[in-house]
Amino acid sequence: MAKKNAFYAQSGGVTAVINASAAGVIETAAKHKDKIGKVYAGRNGIIGALTEDLIDTSKESIADIAALRTTPSGAFGSCRYKLKSLEANKREYERLIAVFKAHNIGYFFYNGGGDSADTCYKVSQLSATLGYPVQAIHVPKTVDNDLPITDCCPGFGSVAKYVAVSTLEASFDVKSMAKTSTKIFVIEVMGRHAGWIAAAGGLLVDHNIPIVILFPEVPFDQQKFIAKVDANVKKFGYCTIVVSEGCHYPDGKFLAEQGTRDAFGHAQLGGAAPVVANMVKDALGYKFHWAVADYLQRAARHIASKTDVKQAYELGKAAVQLAVKGRNAVMPTVERLSDVPYKYRIGVADLKDVANVEKFMPANFITKDGYGITEKCKRYLTPLIQGEDYPKYENGLPQYVTLKNVAVAKKLPAFKI
Amino acid sequence: MAKKNAFYAQSGGVTAVINASAAGVIETAAKHKDKIGKVYAGRNGIIGALTEDLIDTSKESIADIAALRTTPSGAFGSCRYKLKSLEANKREYERLIAVFKAHNIGYFFYNGGGDSADTCYKVSQLSATLGYPVQAIHVPKTVDNDLPITDCCPGFGSVAKYVAVSTLEASFDVKSMAKTSTKIFVIEVMGRHAGWIAAAGGLLVDHNIPIVILFPEVPFDQQKFIAKVDANVKKFGYCTIVVSEGCHYPDGKFLAEQGTRDAFGHAQLGGAAPVVANMVKDALGYKFHWAVADYLQRAARHIASKTDVKQAYELGKAAVQLAVKGRNAVMPTVERLSDVPYKYRIGVADLKDVANVEKFMPANFITKDGYGITEKCKRYLTPLIQGEDYPKYENGLPQYVTLKNVAVAKKLPAFKI
Repeated sequence: MAKKNAFYAQSGGVTAVINASAAGVIETAAKHKDKIGKVYAGRNGIIGALTEDLIDTSKESIADIAALRTTPSGAFGSCRYKLKSLEANKREYERLIAVFKAHNIGYFFYNGGGDSADTCYKVSQLSATLGYPVQAIHVPKTVDNDLPITDCCPGFGSVAKYVAVSTLEASFDVKSMAKTSTKIFVIEVMGRHAGWIAAAGGLLVDHNIPIVILFPEVPFDQQKFIAKVDANVKKFGYCTIVVSEGCHYPDGKFLAEQGTRDAFGHAQLGGAAPVVANMVKDALGYKFHWAVADYLQRAARHIASKTDVKQAYELGKAAVQLAVKGRNAVMPTVERLSDVPYKYRIGVADLKDVANVEKFMPANFITKDGYGITEKCKRYLTPLIQGEDYPKYENGLPQYVTLKNVAVAKKLPAFKI
Repeated sequence: MAKKNAFYAQSGGVTAVINASAAGVIETAAKHKDKIGKVYAGRNGIIGALTEDLIDTSKESIADIAALRTTPSGAFGSCRYKLKSLEANKREYERLIAVFKAHNIGYFFYNGGGDSADTCYKVSQLSATLGYPVQAIHVPKTVDNDLPITDCCPGFGSVAKYVAVSTLEASFDVKSMAKTSTKIFVIEVMGRHAGWIAAAGGLLVDHNIPIVILFPEVPFDQQKFIAKVDANVKKFGYCTIVVSEGCHYPDGKFLAEQGTRDAFGHAQLGGAAPVVANMVKDALGYKFHWAVADYLQRAARHIASKTDVKQAYELGKAAVQLAVKGRNAVMPTVERLSDVPYKYRIGVADLKDVANVEKFMPANFITKDGYGITEKCKRYLTPLIQGEDYPKYENGLPQYVTLKNVAVAKKLPAFKI
């Protein structure tokens, strides 16, 4: 096979470790100079490919590429943009091929979640559908941990660690205050459809901390919830609640959508946490505090899981290795071999089985009452938060790298997306 | 002087390092066995003294007391309870004396903020007012950094580090997303009256990150604020906003009080962050995300400032050293000697000058436009976030200690507070 350049892009919500995957791709490609030329990164994901806005990663220093391993966010910019089907938007696919041709790109590495796997799968079919030979490999990434086949997704372990650590610390705090002040602490975490992130709060069960988890998988029952919280306060003096942003009523209405209006009649300001906190206050009268972690949780590279960082890198590396072996339309995966001691190997999944499939918490991961995690879930989650992988600090702050992101000279006319 | 026991209690909102001060008090007292007998901790602060609910810290292992140095929250429980004046509530002072007498307590170490300094000062006057000899020493603690005389307060440096690190990470995140998605990120931080914590967001100025800070010291001007945010988005593509919970309009009304009502007409659910985020969305149409850090910020021992932990310990130690020197009605302080290199020594302040005085951000710490920090402020803040002081981890989570908290046998009749 003739030597070809590679395209790499980051897609969807970024994570604390997606740049570690980027480092895995770029550093491994450099070890296969016989087959892979330059690695061009898309500026802002697939949009960079469509607009021919390519970044020449070879212009970065070796040290800066290595520093991606400890830098959160998407160093090349990400995007929320899903390619339509070939039938619906042939123009975009033809443009991709034009850009690939112009820059001699034969490898397409796409680093994202479920939607991105769909885009990557569509690109992988371009040889067959439009006659342009390109190998498309998907590198899994999503804090939501909702991709199928792979045992876990890079990004998730670090969020899980952040949520477990933060919930532990805040629970210690509220416990200290409970005698005369705050008795209820609510933390809202990400997860619109799947409760994997919220489940991480359940890891504190061995720390004798009363935690109530509100999963998107369990329709919300206000009366039962209030009774559970009250029982905890009566027994422990306080209660911590981890609420998933996707927690909803049996009719599908999110807790966060309370029809809240401000003085001007503008709709809904808040998240699920203040709704839950006020609900407890109204029913039981307990003083509360609440937090919404939002981007802080998925960007928290300072407390990333070492296991997660390692896997993120390895999956980037594996994607390149699959490419040089001639594979197309696949995604490297984590295959778990054992829980204790934790052992895994890198496997491979067909992209057609990954695209647009969401993996929810299995029913046997959630306790019968719906508010906690089972031993089985704990065994699953525990290895994923193992180990710390601290960034270097300078002057009190982490040394996160900002790349030069030098543009590749354009060869084509502009393209309007 | 005859050997006396000591009383130690934690008061007000707890911090990531107040237990380091506790370790400083207990370990230093153990080195002065000629003068100090046991250290009894108040269970839930001063309430423990009033109800004779004392904890015998000598029942804890040396390792567990040492582990307080890396454990957030208040290990003995804190409280929000301010003693009234002697005239208004003589009964409580007489009870304190009864408890002190019954347990041979001659030293009173109170670890808290401004209100607590007031309580401590009142106790320090008991020899003069009610004829009971007790030496009362205040150990400063407050994330708000609003105590006078001392250059800084233990607890603040760690919150400042948390805010700076989290804001840096979230800014990297939003920068990655800004092309097609989120352009505005708002983080709400503590500080009802003083903007010290919000100011920590300004430490990112050298990282080329567009930050707008909303201080409680600067009355909110919506038009000017919106223009500032828009200018940042136009220049950088995105904007990060750090809003203090105490940010308010010129008439004193907090941003958080927007007259928000839910579907049932219940008042105000939200914080300042969603209000600010929606305000930007309404005016400029930019997609936003927002976070409310709440207890997460003050409990975040996992990212505590090494400088802060060290000072917290040293001030606990200094309090005991002042006591054995016969001092009363004082508080050890941090006296800054130079910014670069950072040098300080432990000084001492009279409690009468500390109680009920709040220290706000000096005007020359805030930029002229009201949205950033000056070089002078940066020079002040930078040393306080220096260094990391990681707790040990086990199974992916920090090893925070929970003490046995063995009660001292009661000798007195019950007391109703």
